[in-house]
Amino acid sequence: MATRRSKKFNDFGLGTKNDTGGYRALNKDGSFNVKKINIPFFERLNFFHSLITMSWSRFFVLILVAYFGINILFASIYTVIGVENLTGIVADGSFDQFMEGFFFSAQTITTLGYGRVAPMGYPANIVAAVESMMGLLGFALATGLLYGRFSRPSAKIRYSENAVIGPYHDINGFMFRVVNPQSNQLLELEVQVNLAMQRKNSELRDFYSLELERDKVAFMPYMWTIVHPISDKSPLYGLTAADLVEKDAEFVIAMRAHDESSSQTVYSRSSYKATEIEWGKKFVYVVKRENNGIVIDVGRIDEMETAPLNT
Amino acid sequence: MATRRSKKFNDFGLGTKNDTGGYRALNKDGSFNVKKINIPFFERLNFFHSLITMSWSRFFVLILVAYFGINILFASIYTVIGVENLTGIVADGSFDQFMEGFFFSAQTITTLGYGRVAPMGYPANIVAAVESMMGLLGFALATGLLYGRFSRPSAKIRYSENAVIGPYHDINGFMFRVVNPQSNQLLELEVQVNLAMQRKNSELRDFYSLELERDKVAFMPYMWTIVHPISDKSPLYGLTAADLVEKDAEFVIAMRAHDESSSQTVYSRSSYKATEIEWGKKFVYVVKRENNGIVIDVGRIDEMETAPLNT
Amino acid sequence: MATRRSKKFNDFGLGTKNDTGGYRALNKDGSFNVKKINIPFFERLNFFHSLITMSWSRFFVLILVAYFGINILFASIYTVIGVENLTGIVADGSFDQFMEGFFFSAQTITTLGYGRVAPMGYPANIVAAVESMMGLLGFALATGLLYGRFSRPSAKIRYSENAVIGPYHDINGFMFRVVNPQSNQLLELEVQVNLAMQRKNSELRDFYSLELERDKVAFMPYMWTIVHPISDKSPLYGLTAADLVEKDAEFVIAMRAHDESSSQTVYSRSSYKATEIEWGKKFVYVVKRENNGIVIDVGRIDEMETAPLNT
Amino acid sequence: MATRRSKKFNDFGLGTKNDTGGYRALNKDGSFNVKKINIPFFERLNFFHSLITMSWSRFFVLILVAYFGINILFASIYTVIGVENLTGIVADGSFDQFMEGFFFSAQTITTLGYGRVAPMGYPANIVAAVESMMGLLGFALATGLLYGRFSRPSAKIRYSENAVIGPYHDINGFMFRVVNPQSNQLLELEVQVNLAMQRKNSELRDFYSLELERDKVAFMPYMWTIVHPISDKSPLYGLTAADLVEKDAEFVIAMRAHDESSSQTVYSRSSYKATEIEWGKKFVYVVKRENNGIVIDVGRIDEMETAPLNT
Repeated sequence: MATRRSKKFNDFGLGTKNDTGGYRALNKDGSFNVKKINIPFFERLNFFHSLITMSWSRFFVLILVAYFGINILFASIYTVIGVENLTGIVADGSFDQFMEGFFFSAQTITTLGYGRVAPMGYPANIVAAVESMMGLLGFALATGLLYGRFSRPSAKIRYSENAVIGPYHDINGFMFRVVNPQSNQLLELEVQVNLAMQRKNSELRDFYSLELERDKVAFMPYMWTIVHPISDKSPLYGLTAADLVEKDAEFVIAMRAHDESSSQTVYSRSSYKATEIEWGKKFVYVVKRENNGIVIDVGRIDEMETAPLNT
Repeated sequence: MATRRSKKFNDFGLGTKNDTGGYRALNKDGSFNVKKINIPFFERLNFFHSLITMSWSRFFVLILVAYFGINILFASIYTVIGVENLTGIVADGSFDQFMEGFFFSAQTITTLGYGRVAPMGYPANIVAAVESMMGLLGFALATGLLYGRFSRPSAKIRYSENAVIGPYHDINGFMFRVVNPQSNQLLELEVQVNLAMQRKNSELRDFYSLELERDKVAFMPYMWTIVHPISDKSPLYGLTAADLVEKDAEFVIAMRAHDESSSQTVYSRSSYKATEIEWGKKFVYVVKRENNGIVIDVGRIDEMETAPLNT
Repeated sequence: MATRRSKKFNDFGLGTKNDTGGYRALNKDGSFNVKKINIPFFERLNFFHSLITMSWSRFFVLILVAYFGINILFASIYTVIGVENLTGIVADGSFDQFMEGFFFSAQTITTLGYGRVAPMGYPANIVAAVESMMGLLGFALATGLLYGRFSRPSAKIRYSENAVIGPYHDINGFMFRVVNPQSNQLLELEVQVNLAMQRKNSELRDFYSLELERDKVAFMPYMWTIVHPISDKSPLYGLTAADLVEKDAEFVIAMRAHDESSSQTVYSRSSYKATEIEWGKKFVYVVKRENNGIVIDVGRIDEMETAPLNT
Repeated sequence: MATRRSKKFNDFGLGTKNDTGGYRALNKDGSFNVKKINIPFFERLNFFHSLITMSWSRFFVLILVAYFGINILFASIYTVIGVENLTGIVADGSFDQFMEGFFFSAQTITTLGYGRVAPMGYPANIVAAVESMMGLLGFALATGLLYGRFSRPSAKIRYSENAVIGPYHDINGFMFRVVNPQSNQLLELEVQVNLAMQRKNSELRDFYSLELERDKVAFMPYMWTIVHPISDKSPLYGLTAADLVEKDAEFVIAMRAHDESSSQTVYSRSSYKATEIEWGKKFVYVVKRENNGIVIDVGRIDEMETAPLNT
C-alpha cells in the first residue's frame, strides 16, 4: 500500500491561471470543455476526422444526399447532351426525360448497367465512362469510411456514477470502479488519475498525479476498483468534503488498453467533480461464484454501503 | 539466475475473496471463466466484435441469410409496385412473377444488371436505384468484415500440455515450453506468469507475479522453455505437490509479441492448474542439427524425462 | 523546475563533421535537407510510398491517365480482333469503330456492362473476361490507395513562428508553443528538443538533448508552451544571441502522439534556427473563460510581449 | 564512451547446446536457418501469412488459376442445367455451348452482366444469383490481399557488406553501417547487436548482448554507423581475428523503426559471421555538403580505408 508518486506535474496543458478555474475541464463522456477560435478554415479542416466521428444518421443522410445530388448533376448533363443520345428512352415530356437521365445515371454510377437505356455517340459515351469511373472511386471511399466507422475501436468502459472516499486498510482511499460491459477483451490496461484544485487565495490551480494502489492490470475480465490511498503524502490528506468543493476539485481519469478484437489501442476518459464523491461509503462486492464460473452483476456497479472513515 | 521480482501485485481484477476460489480462472484456450449479467442490451452490443470473432460457418450462414432476406424484401416491393413495371418479365403465375422479382433484385443488389429484366417508370426505377446503392454499401461492409476476419492476427502459440517442476542449476524451477507452429515470425516476445493460491484458513486468495529466468526474447525461431527459478524468494519455495493442490494453485500465462506478417501486436494466454504439473521431470531437448540448418521436432514438445529434484 | 537530462547524445545520424555545418538540417515543414545518390533504381523504388504521399492533383491525374491508357490499349485489341465480334456496333468509319471499342472497353473494365455492345466469339469474350477481372483488381488497388491517402494520419500541429528566450521563474528559458488546430484529439504527446551547435575553432558540431520542464502530456486540448529551463547545466547557459548565431545553432523539435480518430501514432517535426529566436520576450496568455467553457484564440499563437531576462 | 551493458542474456531461444554450433543462425536476408517438423497440418496452416508473403508472380498466377477454375466449375453447372436456360446463346456444338457458359459465368462473377446472355428459369437464375454474390466476396478478398501486400511495410535497410573492427577513440570498436535507400522516413530507430560464440572446450555457446555507443536515434536521414566499443568489459576484449573464427562467432543484428508512410512498426535483421569482419579498417566518410543541402553517396557504403588498431 505504498504511495508511489504524487507530484504536481501533469497539467495536460490545462493552464494554471484562475480564469480557467471553477468549471468542468473534462465532461463525463470524455470530451473536453474547450473551443478553439481564429483557426484558418483549411488548417482546421479534417474531412476524415469529421466523416469518421459524425453520428450514423448524419453519415447516411450525407451519403444519400451526395448520391442524389450527383445523379441530378449527371442527369442534367445527359439532358444537355440530348436524351436522343441514349437508346431505349421511352419518355415524352422533358421532366420524364430528365428522370430517365437520372435513372440512367444511377445505373451508371453504381456500374449496374442494365442496358435498357445505353449511351450512343461520343458525348454520352464519354460522360458515362467518366461517371462509372467516378462511381467506382466514390463508392470506394464511402465503403472505406463505412468500414472505418464500423471497425473503429472504442473502449466503452463504464465508470461508477460516483466515486467514494472510504476506509482503505488502516487509512482512507479515493475509489471508483470500472467495468467493460462488452464481450471483447481489453488487455494491458493502464489508468492515470489527475486531480486539479484551486489554490487558496490565489489565482492558480494545482495539478496532481495521484498515486494508485495499482495502475496497470494485464486483463480486466471482472470489475476493477481503482484506489488512491490517502496516505500522508497524498494531496487529499487532511481535506474534508467541504474543502474539495471550495477548491473546485476535479478528478480527471484517463485509461488506455489494447482491444483484442480490433488489435488496436483504445482510450477512455472521464472525470469526477467534488460534488460527485460520496464520503464514508464503500462499494458493494458484486462477484458471485456459480457452478464452475464467476458471475459479475454489472447492474450493481453503483451500489454502495456505509463505511465509517478511519481517522 | 537472480530472482528479480516476486511481489503480490497483479491480481488482474480477479478479486481476492474466496467465493472466487476453487475453480479455473482462465481456460486453457485463453478465454475467461466469467459471465457478466444485468448489462443493458445497447451497452453490451458490439456488432463488430461479434462479426469479427464468430465462427466462419456462422459468418457465411449469416451472409447467406441476409442476402436471401433482403432479396425477398425487395422482391415483395417490386411485386407490390407491379411486375408490369419491369420489362422482359415472361412469368405468368403470381409465384413465378415474385420469383422474377427476386432474381431481378439479386441482379440489382450485386450491380450485375443483365438487363433482360429492367425497371420502367418512376417507382421501379427509384427502388432499383436505392437497392443498387444499398448493395454497394452492404457488400462493402461484408467485404471489410471478410478481410478483417481473414487478416486478423492471432498468435497460435502452442504450449506444452503440462508444466514441470524439475531441477534448475542447483535449485529447482517451474518450467513449461512454447513454440510457434506457423511460419510467420513472432518478434519481441514478452511473457508474464502469475500464480493464484488460496490463503490457508482464510477466505482470501493471494496473487503473485513470478520472476522468470528471462521474460523477453527478440525472436523465437525455435522452442522456448520458460523458467521460474524456485529460489528462497519464490512463493513456491518449500511447497510440495500436495500443497499446490490444497491451495488450488493456478499459473496464468500471458504472452505478447509482434507478428511480422500482419505488422500487429498479438496476444496469447493459457493456464496450468496444480494437477497439470509434473514433479521431478524435465523436458527433452528436441533441437537437432541437420546439414547447415536446425531442425525442431515440434511433435515432441510434451516429451519429458525423469530428473530428481534438488533438495 | 529540475533540469533532468542534458547529455550530448542524440545526433540522429547527422554526423559531427563540419562539412555538414552552416545550413538548416531540418526544414520548417519537417522534411530533411538531404539528397541520397548512387542508389540502384530497384532498391530506391517504393511505389506505395510514392502513391500515398504524392499530391492529390498528381494522384488524380495519374488515375485518369491510367484509365484512359488502359482503355486505349483494350480498344486497340478489340479493333485488331475485329469489331464484327462485338454485337451492336453501329459505327462505320475505322476511327468511329475504334471509339466504339474504347467505350465498350470502359464499360467492361468498370464492370458496367450495359450490353448494347457485347462480345461474340472466343477472342472477344476472352479479352473481355480478362479485362473485367483486371478492372476489378485495378480499381481495388486505386480504391485502397484512395482510402489509404484519405485516412492517413498526420499531426497537423502548428508551431509558433518563432521561439523565445525569456524569463522563467528565477532563471531564463527557451520556449515555443504548439497547438492542434483540428478537432481530433491527440493523446499521450511526447516532445524532444535537440540542439546542434558548431564547436568553437573546430570542425565538429555538438548535439545536445535539451531537458524540458515537461516532455509528456496525457492530452493537449489547449495550447502547450514547451520550456527548456536554462539552468547552469543547460548547454545554453551563459550564451548570448550573438553566440547562438555564430555557432549556427539549430533547435530540432520532434513530437509524437496518438491520434484518436485514426487510432494511430502520428509524428511532427520542426526546427528553429538561431535567427528565429526572440530574446527577452514571452508569449501572451491566450486562454479565456467564456460561460462554462474555455476559449483558445489560436490566431494569437505568435503574440509576444517584452519580458526582461533574469540575470 | 561508457560501456553500458554486456550481459550474457539474450539467446533468443537459440539454445546453448553445441549441436546448434558451427553454422549460421540468421541468414544475411534476415530469415532464420531453421526447419520445424511434425506439426499437424491444420496447426501449421496460415493462409493469410502465405498469401501475403508469397512472390508477386505466384500471387497473380494463383488468382488467374482460381478465376479460370471457378469459371470452369460454373460453366459445367450451367451446362448440366442446360444452356437452353440461358437466353441469347447462339452456339451449336456442345464445346461451343460450354464456352458460352464459361463466358456467361465470367460476366456474372465479375458482376459485368452484359445481358446478351441472361439466365431464364429457376435453376439458372439461382446459380447466377449465388455466383454473383460469391464473385463480390471473392474479389473482395483478392482485393484486400492485393492492397495488403502492396501496403505491407518493410524496412529495406541496407547494411554494409562487411563489418569492421577498427580504432574508436583511444580503444577499438566493432562497427558496421546502415542506410535507408528509400525516400520514406524511418523514425525512432532502435538497434540490438547480439554475439554468439562457441565456448572453449565445451559443448555450449555463449550469447552476449553488446553495448552500443548509441542504440537509438530519433530519425535516420543520413547513413548511420553503429559502434560497439571494445572496452575491457566487452566480450570481444583481447580476442583476435583468429579467435573469432575459432569460436565461430556470429553477430546478429535486429533493428526496428516506425515507418512514416505506412504508420507501422517495421523490423530488419541481418548478421555478420567472423569471416565477414575486416580488422584494422574504418569506413570512409561519404557525406558531402552541396549548396544548401547534404548529399549522401549510398553507393560508397562499403568503402573502407586502413586504420591501425589501438593496442
